Amino acid sequence: MDILTSAKNAKTAAIKLAAVEATIKNQALKAIAEKLATDKKKILEANEKDLVNSGEMNIPTPLIKRLKFDAKKISDTIDGIYSLINLPDPVGVTLTARELDKELNLYQISCPIGVIGVIFESRPDALVQISTLCLKSGNAVLLKGGSEAANTNRVLADIIAEATEAVGIPNSWLHLLETREDVNDMLKMDEYIDLLIPRGSNAFVKYIMDHSNIPVMGHADGICHVFVDSDVDQKMALNIVIDSKCQYVAVCNALETLLVHEAVAQEFLPSLKEKMIHLGVKLLGCPRTTSIIDIAPATEKDWKTEYLDLILSVKVVATVEEAIDHINLYGSGHTDAIVTQNPDTANKFMSLVDSGNVLWNCSTRFSDGFRYGLGAEVGISTGKIHARGPVGLEGLVIYKWILKGSGQIVAPYADGTRSFTHHKLS
Amino acid sequence: MDILTSAKNAKTAAIKLAAVEATIKNQALKAIAEKLATDKKKILEANEKDLVNSGEMNIPTPLIKRLKFDAKKISDTIDGIYSLINLPDPVGVTLTARELDKELNLYQISCPIGVIGVIFESRPDALVQISTLCLKSGNAVLLKGGSEAANTNRVLADIIAEATEAVGIPNSWLHLLETREDVNDMLKMDEYIDLLIPRGSNAFVKYIMDHSNIPVMGHADGICHVFVDSDVDQKMALNIVIDSKCQYVAVCNALETLLVHEAVAQEFLPSLKEKMIHLGVKLLGCPRTTSIIDIAPATEKDWKTEYLDLILSVKVVATVEEAIDHINLYGSGHTDAIVTQNPDTANKFMSLVDSGNVLWNCSTRFSDGFRYGLGAEVGISTGKIHARGPVGLEGLVIYKWILKGSGQIVAPYADGTRSFTHHKLS
Repeated sequence: MDILTSAKNAKTAAIKLAAVEATIKNQALKAIAEKLATDKKKILEANEKDLVNSGEMNIPTPLIKRLKFDAKKISDTIDGIYSLINLPDPVGVTLTARELDKELNLYQISCPIGVIGVIFESRPDALVQISTLCLKSGNAVLLKGGSEAANTNRVLADIIAEATEAVGIPNSWLHLLETREDVNDMLKMDEYIDLLIPRGSNAFVKYIMDHSNIPVMGHADGICHVFVDSDVDQKMALNIVIDSKCQYVAVCNALETLLVHEAVAQEFLPSLKEKMIHLGVKLLGCPRTTSIIDIAPATEKDWKTEYLDLILSVKVVATVEEAIDHINLYGSGHTDAIVTQNPDTANKFMSLVDSGNVLWNCSTRFSDGFRYGLGAEVGISTGKIHARGPVGLEGLVIYKWILKGSGQIVAPYADGTRSFTHHKLS
Repeated sequence: MDILTSAKNAKTAAIKLAAVEATIKNQALKAIAEKLATDKKKILEANEKDLVNSGEMNIPTPLIKRLKFDAKKISDTIDGIYSLINLPDPVGVTLTARELDKELNLYQISCPIGVIGVIFESRPDALVQISTLCLKSGNAVLLKGGSEAANTNRVLADIIAEATEAVGIPNSWLHLLETREDVNDMLKMDEYIDLLIPRGSNAFVKYIMDHSNIPVMGHADGICHVFVDSDVDQKMALNIVIDSKCQYVAVCNALETLLVHEAVAQEFLPSLKEKMIHLGVKLLGCPRTTSIIDIAPATEKDWKTEYLDLILSVKVVATVEEAIDHINLYGSGHTDAIVTQNPDTANKFMSLVDSGNVLWNCSTRFSDGFRYGLGAEVGISTGKIHARGPVGLEGLVIYKWILKGSGQIVAPYADGTRSFTHHKLS
């Protein structure tokens, strides 16, 4: 099936899916979980084929690690689906209700967005997570996974489509795209696709943003900061810096630039250096930093770089305001943390740093849909409309306005013979 | 000042404005209202100049009518500002609050979007309405009005900037752009501008959407439908059709295509024709329509046309499903109404029509921010993310995630030695 037909069918399915009741969607989720268990052997075989192919193609070890979908991961994925079933349905929620006049009532009701195009990296568990989030939120989905995972993704997509369509979910609500050309075609289909969620490298996400009129939700860079204030528990600060930088270095919410208040720099930086050398982290510093500890100098480019590696740039600042200005200038609006004992300073920082996630006395690594308790996430958004930070079920719905009347026309309100009551309905 | 500097300054102002308290913002709104009253003479003189210039340039009468900003309109505008003051502050609202673990609490707090670029038609009252909505929601704004209204807009923008900056609103939160080139430059400034709201012709809005990476909120077409069901009070239906089509013909929520159930077409269409001839509305019909009443035939193109004029295309359909399919295929997702006595048919229609506003037994002309009780609107969105339908204060805010800890790091949660509580905080 060509992609245009897939997209058209997905749009038709999306309209029907928007009206499917929560119980049916939950039955469908249960059917997916059960079929993943019964078809486990088929999944493992497909994944083995992908692993062998990737080995032959000299794909880097970290990618292969992410590609592996073993019995443990299948079981975790199934657990995730049961958690999702227990979350409340995000569709059909009355957001506001207002009487405009007698027997003329306005309701703002949450509803699915429609057709979501998701382009994701090699992890096959992402396919299941994204599809099930879309299903629960009533959205049709066009999926494109990494080509390394082609066999696994094909089996998983078939399992999901078969399991859900068997219990009454509209046919064609899920399509798996197979080629890079499909992605380029998808970018032009603003008539059928309502939202794109790209997950991948910075360059890839920027490419998508630059080449489509379809709204894009996601993040290109994750240049995250920790600011160590003057009024600080230095042991806590060091602990948070280490976890933010090292707990998982290749992820978007890892620390890239450390800002240190000048009042504590003299004492803090030497202990930082000692720990970081021990952990294999290379430090780069501003002139004030390098005058205190002997490390390589940071350049202007460093402040704008997402290393995703064991490298940390360090800058000494005179005030919390300087830290805020640095973050708003060089940051990517992803996740920024302050370590301070002073609530006023913390509140100033959290109020003026213009990022989706602003943290006080904890690690940047917490900014994540699962940790935030959103169930799971389809991605993290650094955009400033619709949804910000980790995006779970609620980021996959919008609303429609429903107005129920009894024959009212506008003319008498326009000429002033009738006026609106605008009472809130409870 | 060049537009790049204006945009940079607006971004700086936006960050400060996000932290300005509601009382100050309301004081600033009051200051605008008062200065509009005291500077009334200056406004009227500037508007007179614009009216004279427009007369000389042979600008069409309806445009000149919209351009006129007389004492009555100034007084209405001032009333509107006092209504806005009385609305609750949309910023700083706690949307969700969740304990992730002991002394690790997550808050989702509403905040302004940042810098909004608004391009609007000739009405000078729109400048005041948009600026005050942006101010109340804490957003900086770059404004470009119609060149016919240049003198009036300049005076109004100066009044607003002076009044607000005198009571502590950050300098440069409002900029008036003067030329068409400014608009083209603005489209490229995705680094500084967070959202564009174009208000104008279909072609203009489409141009903006096609030429910027900045998210755009608005609508190009407003192809609105009324479906007259079989189980219908025909008098009510006719009344609603007349109001939807004729109450104000040149607006986006006016009726363009009427769909009539075949069971009532034989009786309904002749009375429709009689009324419409009387009101000067030209009717175009599908073959089944023209077999019942003698009117000109509608072509495929008519179903996709927003006339904004005294023209109405009419189609006979066999079922509510055919009506829904027609609307989802040819409509623009703006506003669509059903007239029926059958609640099941109405619910099916409102659930399956994929439009921002779905109406039952009332005129399409109700879909408007003021009538909906939103205070006012910056525009109507036919997009499917962020905000849909009339967009008031709530469409001008987003949220940030604020996480307050006491030194927590991710490592123990990742290795399973600690787990999240995820309790809802009240």
